Amino acid sequence: MSDVIRRVAIVGGTHGNELTGVYLVKKFEQFPELIARSSFETIALLANPKAIAANRRYLDRDLNRCFANEDLSNPALTGYEDRRAKEIAAQLGSKDCPNVDAIIDLHSTTSNMGLTILPSSTHPFNFRLCAYLSSLYSAVRVCCGVQCSQDTPMLRSLSPLGCTIEVGAIAQGVVNAYYLQQTEMLVHAILNYFDAFNRGKLLPVPANLTVYQAIASVDYPRDAIGELQGVIHPQRQFKDYEPLYPGAPMFLTFAGKSIPYQGDSIVFPVFINEAAYYEKGIAMTLTQQQQVALETVVLQKLERW
Amino acid sequence: MSDVIRRVAIVGGTHGNELTGVYLVKKFEQFPELIARSSFETIALLANPKAIAANRRYLDRDLNRCFANEDLSNPALTGYEDRRAKEIAAQLGSKDCPNVDAIIDLHSTTSNMGLTILPSSTHPFNFRLCAYLSSLYSAVRVCCGVQCSQDTPMLRSLSPLGCTIEVGAIAQGVVNAYYLQQTEMLVHAILNYFDAFNRGKLLPVPANLTVYQAIASVDYPRDAIGELQGVIHPQRQFKDYEPLYPGAPMFLTFAGKSIPYQGDSIVFPVFINEAAYYEKGIAMTLTQQQQVALETVVLQKLERW
Repeated sequence: MSDVIRRVAIVGGTHGNELTGVYLVKKFEQFPELIARSSFETIALLANPKAIAANRRYLDRDLNRCFANEDLSNPALTGYEDRRAKEIAAQLGSKDCPNVDAIIDLHSTTSNMGLTILPSSTHPFNFRLCAYLSSLYSAVRVCCGVQCSQDTPMLRSLSPLGCTIEVGAIAQGVVNAYYLQQTEMLVHAILNYFDAFNRGKLLPVPANLTVYQAIASVDYPRDAIGELQGVIHPQRQFKDYEPLYPGAPMFLTFAGKSIPYQGDSIVFPVFINEAAYYEKGIAMTLTQQQQVALETVVLQKLERW
Repeated sequence: MSDVIRRVAIVGGTHGNELTGVYLVKKFEQFPELIARSSFETIALLANPKAIAANRRYLDRDLNRCFANEDLSNPALTGYEDRRAKEIAAQLGSKDCPNVDAIIDLHSTTSNMGLTILPSSTHPFNFRLCAYLSSLYSAVRVCCGVQCSQDTPMLRSLSPLGCTIEVGAIAQGVVNAYYLQQTEMLVHAILNYFDAFNRGKLLPVPANLTVYQAIASVDYPRDAIGELQGVIHPQRQFKDYEPLYPGAPMFLTFAGKSIPYQGDSIVFPVFINEAAYYEKGIAMTLTQQQQVALETVVLQKLERW
């Protein structure tokens, strides 16, 4: 890893029906000066052109689950997204030998997650970036997956630096002007942060960062053959990041029965009722709220941590 | 047409990714007593099983545009939805010789249309039904398409009586418990209205009904090859049924230019930013607000009007 950020990739359309990223990348292709910074090169990339053309999340397989090292090196995987993942990895570089120093992957969700940053790893550089964004925009929340490292199969894992921007609630196949503007604003702030870093200037961040750390996912109530038997409880719908207390309603069955949260500690659900997660068996992801103390030591090198 | 309602069809999944209707019909299949009324028979039908299984609006062609008489009688149309339309027309009866007296078709939209009733025709019976529903539930709005008759290619046009229930905003591929409950509530009210009619009792309705009459559709700003150049203006997003004044912002281009409404009279847009209408070239449908005086004469027969 270099001491500075030399190349940044902004990726849209990893999921073909998440149009915020698709149209932002098209805008950046049309107006490249918007993402140009003098201290590094920025490339804009549409990750899944055939899914975009079909207005679907994917054709054969979720592209954002195709970037595990063992899959990238497996010649037996020849579906469209498997091939596309290998092409993207060739372009952006492998996890061990990246061609880009940071990736910003643009997504949207039908969950009411507002402006969420999913850092690509727990590298202190990423956490400082997240803290910078949340100090600029109070609506920004930071969420770490159960795995938050380069071992994940997400596209963003090709580089340890960077993040996914996840905005919503937005329906699939829809462009929402407000979230388009908000996402663009976050992209500019990230690029400015990189640029300042390259110039030896670490932009100020608060002493602590609130991180929502994923701990588990919960599926919908289903019958023996997997058929849905209930839905997100109306009191929980669109309540991403709000505390879920033991005994509070989580689901409502079609027969009218309320199913409570049976855990014994407060959690903060996210990805509540995400359309693409029905097939993954995820009704919501439970997170815990954590405070991360940001190192006071000035980061001078982007060393592996 | 009979003097009474003998058979009613409740249809869900005409669009496979509009899950409100899919799961309500499945619920009605599981608990048929919910839709049983002693004065008529009710059948529940999933219209597009393959699209439901694929979680897509349709496979080959929008099923809800396949019910024009000339298409139903055209043996050259052999796509999945064309064949399905013919099967449904055989089951529910042709427009000239219906097997069911009323159809309730359950839909959802990514537009913020709340609880909308789209009557199958301007038959006085339908308007009285709409007025009854809006008197029960003040959130109900009534919208008539440019064509509001049996000449349309919609599934509901197989019968002159009945309506589409259109609820939203709901993302495609998502079940929203609130709108599931609201839609079921409307279905019950409609069945009760039919039942009372059969018993010679016309339920009371207000003297006038507000109808939003579609007059035209407006496409997104596009370039010469049809590529999107802008989106619904953030001030207009989710503002279905709110008045649009001459000169008010309608679209925002990706380059940041606001495009105003250039008409010279107030209109009330609906289907604003419906995901499925990008491919149809519809960014919103403009309606005019009209008052329909309901006949004071008691309807005694369901004669053709």
